[in-house]
Amino acid sequence: MEVYNVFKDLAIIIVFAKFFGVIARKCKAPQVVGEIIAGLLIGPSVLGLVQQTDFLTGMAEVGVVLLMFSAGLETDLKELIKTGPKAFLIACFGVFFPLVFGALLYMGFYGAAPWGSEEFYKAVFIGVIMTATSVSITVQSLKEMGRLKGTVGTTIVSAAIIDDVIGIVVLTFVIGFKNPDSNPLNVIINTGLFFILAGGIGFLLYKVFSKADTMFPHTRRIPIMALALCFFLAYVAEKYFGIADITGAYVAGIILCSLKDSKYVDEKMEVSSYMIFGPVFFASIGLKTNIQSFNMNILLFSIGFVLVALLAKIIGCGFISKVCGFKWNECLKIGVGMMTRGEVALIVSQKGLSVGLLSSEYFTAVILLIIISSISTPIILKVLYSKFAE
Amino acid sequence: MEVYNVFKDLAIIIVFAKFFGVIARKCKAPQVVGEIIAGLLIGPSVLGLVQQTDFLTGMAEVGVVLLMFSAGLETDLKELIKTGPKAFLIACFGVFFPLVFGALLYMGFYGAAPWGSEEFYKAVFIGVIMTATSVSITVQSLKEMGRLKGTVGTTIVSAAIIDDVIGIVVLTFVIGFKNPDSNPLNVIINTGLFFILAGGIGFLLYKVFSKADTMFPHTRRIPIMALALCFFLAYVAEKYFGIADITGAYVAGIILCSLKDSKYVDEKMEVSSYMIFGPVFFASIGLKTNIQSFNMNILLFSIGFVLVALLAKIIGCGFISKVCGFKWNECLKIGVGMMTRGEVALIVSQKGLSVGLLSSEYFTAVILLIIISSISTPIILKVLYSKFAE
Repeated sequence: MEVYNVFKDLAIIIVFAKFFGVIARKCKAPQVVGEIIAGLLIGPSVLGLVQQTDFLTGMAEVGVVLLMFSAGLETDLKELIKTGPKAFLIACFGVFFPLVFGALLYMGFYGAAPWGSEEFYKAVFIGVIMTATSVSITVQSLKEMGRLKGTVGTTIVSAAIIDDVIGIVVLTFVIGFKNPDSNPLNVIINTGLFFILAGGIGFLLYKVFSKADTMFPHTRRIPIMALALCFFLAYVAEKYFGIADITGAYVAGIILCSLKDSKYVDEKMEVSSYMIFGPVFFASIGLKTNIQSFNMNILLFSIGFVLVALLAKIIGCGFISKVCGFKWNECLKIGVGMMTRGEVALIVSQKGLSVGLLSSEYFTAVILLIIISSISTPIILKVLYSKFAE
Repeated sequence: MEVYNVFKDLAIIIVFAKFFGVIARKCKAPQVVGEIIAGLLIGPSVLGLVQQTDFLTGMAEVGVVLLMFSAGLETDLKELIKTGPKAFLIACFGVFFPLVFGALLYMGFYGAAPWGSEEFYKAVFIGVIMTATSVSITVQSLKEMGRLKGTVGTTIVSAAIIDDVIGIVVLTFVIGFKNPDSNPLNVIINTGLFFILAGGIGFLLYKVFSKADTMFPHTRRIPIMALALCFFLAYVAEKYFGIADITGAYVAGIILCSLKDSKYVDEKMEVSSYMIFGPVFFASIGLKTNIQSFNMNILLFSIGFVLVALLAKIIGCGFISKVCGFKWNECLKIGVGMMTRGEVALIVSQKGLSVGLLSSEYFTAVILLIIISSISTPIILKVLYSKFAE
């Protein structure tokens, strides 16, 4: 590959993402919808102008990590502690409902399978794919509307983070039955260890940053070191604890969110994010998709899959939110905010394929779910927030 | 490759680059020297913590393109037009002197070769490698000192850009004798066409941006579209005209440098540049280098090569600067500013290797030249500017 080709890709992505972003805004939809559609358009599905490369994959990953770091930085720590227990409950129900109804959908299509049989685990696996919420699009939408910091916003983001962790634990459990290498207990221990270590070391790091911030307020070195911490935790989380890199970045943001200069740090992140990494990330969701490979035979299953995946989250999270004392419109916002799926669903599917629990023909259903949820969530959230202001 | 590995690389690069950058500043040397040393340290030569990947290569290329775009944006157009003719002359002498003395050095080591013989072109090729100035490090150093906009600063940058073009023409001439595919006349025509088109289309684009800027002053869309233009021209220059991508980016900057919001656009570029792309670019110079492969036999030639390459630029550019009416200390600043070599020297060497005009053992000499010139130029420039303020 000639290295200058990156500039063609980046120029096309930036121009299309910005153009469709502005159009989306003019249609009262969030900008990110436009950016995903831009990715679909320039990707292999339609125009074929840009191909996924290692470089773009890396850029997109930096993009989503910066987004989650920014979400962490904008967290109100008191609000998080207040919403924590509720978020945990919401996450549990947001995993449980899709898991059960996904399995039931599969059995509805292909017949019931006896408990513990190969076919049974295949059914359960369809549920597993549905469990993990992809919070990035919701975060971006809430941010555009200035609703990220509210109780509902914080609850959604925390619940989505916890839900990722539970989803990974469930995945490891299910795979554990096929693969003797992965030990579900280890996953739980690793996850616990990560958060305990992040809490302890995070407190020390916060003190160091706080001191540096007092000595050199508003200097470049604060955001630069903050960015390094974000990348470091993203790496360590995934490499040594098997937790998603975006969770590590979010934790890095939370560690620094009470810093006096946290707003200053966040501003610097935002510039890189909206100038280049953000558009690349959202466009890459569309880029990864190849609509042409869509097979008509699987259409029916896919439609069922998408409906079950969306409704199970809305009902599961919405129901328990009501129990937790939220108002009806807030329950709906939380349910809708939790229904987006993203790259984690694809990663889980890939895993299922490699251990023989999923056939590749179901990939189109997963991709359809990602596209539909990514496009509809921001639109519905916007409608809900304009109808029911907090 | 697992995608989360990019975060390890980025975190290490950012931490080391920043740390050594600060140390360099404490030693009164420009920060960029520290960043290059950081790259050497973490690269395969010493610690081996980070390996060059497609992702990092792309990031580094974006880094150098952003740097040149920023240099273009900060150009004072009137100053450029004023310095243009002098810069052209300086570039010509800056190419001619190294070309001749490089060839003479080779003949001095391996014996004189008759005009037009294979050995003769090998000697000339050693000179060709020395011709292209790598302006990025000089730009960064002048920027850190706030001297980019002065007459000397503008002269150096314009001369270095022109010198790149002349260097490419010379390269194509020399290769033309070995390779019937590349036509020196075409290169000259292409180069002329690019600048004519860039001038014409550039004027139209400037009008469009100017209008957009009046309609939406200080909005995100201005810097985003400016960035897209920068990437677009970088791509088009290299892909369709065979001119370096950094030249395209610099031209994009010049097109927009008279914009009312050019400072605003530049600020946004700077954030991405110093937060992430800049450190990756400068560290990658060190990363590319493997000191361990250095062979003692070639040491003597390498020392001669480095000395001739540096002195030929200083003398050639300095001499003609004096003729153009600059003061002695300014001549020295221009000569030193023009002596840095960078990735173009490596690209030229690669080309020479592929057409059989250069043996791979001379690569160490080229790498040594890049390192020594990259480290010494900023230091000497800083000394010169503190001794002789403009």
